[in-house]
Amino acid sequence: MIAKLAIIGVGLIGGSLAMSLRAAGQVGTITGCGRGAANLKKAVELGVIDDFCHDPAEAVKDADVIFLAVPLGAMQSTLAAINGHVKAGAVVTDGGSAKGVVVEACQVAYPEILSSFVPGHPIAGTEQSGVEAAFAELYSNRRVILTPLEQNTSESVNLVRTMWQHCGAVVSDMDVSHHDRVLAATSHLPHMLAYGLVDMLARSDEHDDIFRYAAGGFRDFTRIASSNPVMWRDICMGNKQALSGLLANFASEMQALSEQIAAGNDVHLLELFERAKTARDDFVDGVD
Amino acid sequence: MIAKLAIIGVGLIGGSLAMSLRAAGQVGTITGCGRGAANLKKAVELGVIDDFCHDPAEAVKDADVIFLAVPLGAMQSTLAAINGHVKAGAVVTDGGSAKGVVVEACQVAYPEILSSFVPGHPIAGTEQSGVEAAFAELYSNRRVILTPLEQNTSESVNLVRTMWQHCGAVVSDMDVSHHDRVLAATSHLPHMLAYGLVDMLARSDEHDDIFRYAAGGFRDFTRIASSNPVMWRDICMGNKQALSGLLANFASEMQALSEQIAAGNDVHLLELFERAKTARDDFVDGVD
Repeated sequence: MIAKLAIIGVGLIGGSLAMSLRAAGQVGTITGCGRGAANLKKAVELGVIDDFCHDPAEAVKDADVIFLAVPLGAMQSTLAAINGHVKAGAVVTDGGSAKGVVVEACQVAYPEILSSFVPGHPIAGTEQSGVEAAFAELYSNRRVILTPLEQNTSESVNLVRTMWQHCGAVVSDMDVSHHDRVLAATSHLPHMLAYGLVDMLARSDEHDDIFRYAAGGFRDFTRIASSNPVMWRDICMGNKQALSGLLANFASEMQALSEQIAAGNDVHLLELFERAKTARDDFVDGVD
Repeated sequence: MIAKLAIIGVGLIGGSLAMSLRAAGQVGTITGCGRGAANLKKAVELGVIDDFCHDPAEAVKDADVIFLAVPLGAMQSTLAAINGHVKAGAVVTDGGSAKGVVVEACQVAYPEILSSFVPGHPIAGTEQSGVEAAFAELYSNRRVILTPLEQNTSESVNLVRTMWQHCGAVVSDMDVSHHDRVLAATSHLPHMLAYGLVDMLARSDEHDDIFRYAAGGFRDFTRIASSNPVMWRDICMGNKQALSGLLANFASEMQALSEQIAAGNDVHLLELFERAKTARDDFVDGVD
């Protein structure tokens, strides 16, 4: 039971955590913090938070758990803003999609909190954003990765783990850099390809017909290109090394594939498609 | 009303055309033709076709309309097999995903039929295949592109257009090479990226964690990598030039994007993601 929870950034991720803990009866009062008054008023109306303020230092002062759900690019300034205002024994965690950059932000802006700052990443979300998109079941049966720091107390890590379990999530621990490599592959790279494909086709002379004759497969494939551009800019900036390396590898493989197609190497093409289909079917079987 | 329809290749595409025309009361008898007896017996059991044979020449001999729904790689041999057996006044059409290669196949294997061979492409399908995946509503409100040849009689083109309209499809005409460029962009290129991504990640040292922590976005993005490998090998071979060129362009753009990410060019990244989101949201609004 968390007596007082502070959510900095009340959108899809932060709002859904609040709603989920409330539904589970695992939280007392919830204070929201953000810049937009309209969004925060809506969050109170929807019963997501109990009250709000615009100053992170004020929001965190009595909180037992502080959840940072701001864009990655705002993590360091948010940590600087709460520096000195977190009460003794409180635990801080976050929901950022890249972890190395958040750990660095904490080391720079608020190193005193490192023993009770437990970086986390709920692998959940939709291409929607804002508190009106939030719902209590977002984390049910979804994975949450924690990347505990060597400075973390076991009590802090256990508290954050238990919090997510109360939301119905399956929690795993991972090394920070391993997290960033795995997420570059499963999430960040596909987003680059979807954004890049839609952008390239939109610039084509034939873009009217291209979008007119696109069917369901294209729609599914490009769904993630409707994601929030600011959030994804921050994710790119926050996972530069792993993502740029993987994207360059993929570009090189696609160049090679284009040469195989041009050369009509049917044996190579069939082998590649069969390997991929097997891996993808196995992945879906594993998920179902 | 088509008195006798012959379907060569009774799978998702051919089977669904048969079911749809039957449901609309627009066909008399339907003969199926293929190599696998089990699939054809199943098609008779399901009421998709009335009877079957394994020899295309026999299947087409009394038919008024002949629909070629074989893989692209089998079009030329199928046209050669029916050469001389199509009755006067009958119309031949197909469902191939690339059109230039089908027109060439007809020119080589059965040039006498060019006046009544109307190439077509229903933009519909799922990643499933086989007659058991077929359903009567597959073409309802979906687009069908015809690429009429200059030799075609207007009666032939009108008959094929009307046939698809009876299935609930929206029919457009397009030039053969324009079709192949548009489909390279909307369908063939996304399939290459999905196959290529899954294959690259499956070869990674971290593939266990990659597939374990992949979420809904990845699942949607890679759905088309579960498509039939033989069909996609044939599509690549049948649209080599347009597809390899577009894939090489995309590879080059992804190489450039990886450099922008590595350099931390946040302004460029945000602009690209915003342009793509706008184009994608407009596309979905147009579809809905």
